[in-house]
Amino acid sequence: MTKPAAERRQKLKSALIEAAERTIARNGLAALRARDLAAEAGCAVGAIYTAFPDLDAIVIAVNMRTLALLDRHLREVSGSQPAMADVTPEDRDLARLVRLAISYLTFAAKHGPRWRALFEHRLPDGQAVPAWYVAEQNRIFSFVEAPLRAIRPDLTATELAMLARTLFSAVHGVVSLGLEQKLGHMPPRRLREQIALVVAATARGLLDPAPARATKRPSATVRP
Amino acid sequence: MTKPAAERRQKLKSALIEAAERTIARNGLAALRARDLAAEAGCAVGAIYTAFPDLDAIVIAVNMRTLALLDRHLREVSGSQPAMADVTPEDRDLARLVRLAISYLTFAAKHGPRWRALFEHRLPDGQAVPAWYVAEQNRIFSFVEAPLRAIRPDLTATELAMLARTLFSAVHGVVSLGLEQKLGHMPPRRLREQIALVVAATARGLLDPAPARATKRPSATVRP
Repeated sequence: MTKPAAERRQKLKSALIEAAERTIARNGLAALRARDLAAEAGCAVGAIYTAFPDLDAIVIAVNMRTLALLDRHLREVSGSQPAMADVTPEDRDLARLVRLAISYLTFAAKHGPRWRALFEHRLPDGQAVPAWYVAEQNRIFSFVEAPLRAIRPDLTATELAMLARTLFSAVHGVVSLGLEQKLGHMPPRRLREQIALVVAATARGLLDPAPARATKRPSATVRP
Repeated sequence: MTKPAAERRQKLKSALIEAAERTIARNGLAALRARDLAAEAGCAVGAIYTAFPDLDAIVIAVNMRTLALLDRHLREVSGSQPAMADVTPEDRDLARLVRLAISYLTFAAKHGPRWRALFEHRLPDGQAVPAWYVAEQNRIFSFVEAPLRAIRPDLTATELAMLARTLFSAVHGVVSLGLEQKLGHMPPRRLREQIALVVAATARGLLDPAPARATKRPSATVRP
């Protein structure tokens, strides 16, 4: 490919990803159609397939950007807080998990359709998600793994990775059914309280069961 | 309406619900179309709307049957177990919550598309779910409320109802992302272990924080 042709193709790719991102952010993944996407990006329908193998590849590129946005969003709250008197290390790790969960709720509420597209998109059977996408997903889970590792230093890396994904899924369930009002009306403040309550309880219940640590078990943090 | 006409209408309603249930069980909610449904039920497309106001009403009837099935499924494991030596009441309540969660996983794995239809179906804006449907939903949550009430006798009925829905949502999140392999491969046995681990931890962490009870805090039940 000549340099100008490669540049044109790169420009078309960016235009298509941005157009798809706008469509998904506005109307959700189900609204993404090749014809509308071409119109939105200002190209012919056929041109889409000179830049990407199929629409799935464009959705993955959009989801990758959403994951990067979530990454930046979680990074802001995941750092350790300055040491404070009266706060045990366990309390700090518990509070960090609660902050991450609330931050996930805030992100989901703010970016509804884009966030849902992360979970709604399915590749055709037999097609695997690209490795760079999985790597970005793993970076999200690493935010959960850090405080979990402090809470459960006895777990292996594999156990921690699995537990982080399970906790993420649990919070995701509360956030998605809660935001969709699937189980009845739940005002935003209540939803935040419930997430804080359950994440803090889970973290307390997970605390390293080694006897040496049992005596340092922190007092209640969030209770209804 | 004359008696034979009313009977014919009732028969048509049942045929449509059963046809819709077969379609959803086989191919999921998205596969439900008026034309195919009429063919499957052996009636004209127009006849559907003599029996039901719209397709949504048929989906609600199918979902109602799925909830009743889930109700029977959870009922089997939700009863108190016979008293055993060495088992504190708290351990029994914790074990009951874990059994309910695993039972929910089993149900979801067995009835995939029907179970997903419970959450995928959305009524048009402004339309509310019928009261008898909400009542059946509430019966499902009451299975979770019973052991929770034993674990947290200090909570009000409203707090318990909300907490039961939050815990349900958390388990639902782990079950649905887990079964859909959304966060990477998770073998069924692992998924079961993770659910048991997290539900037991959450229940332990939720245990009545009153000092009188703190000394009876049960020992670890499920750990990775």
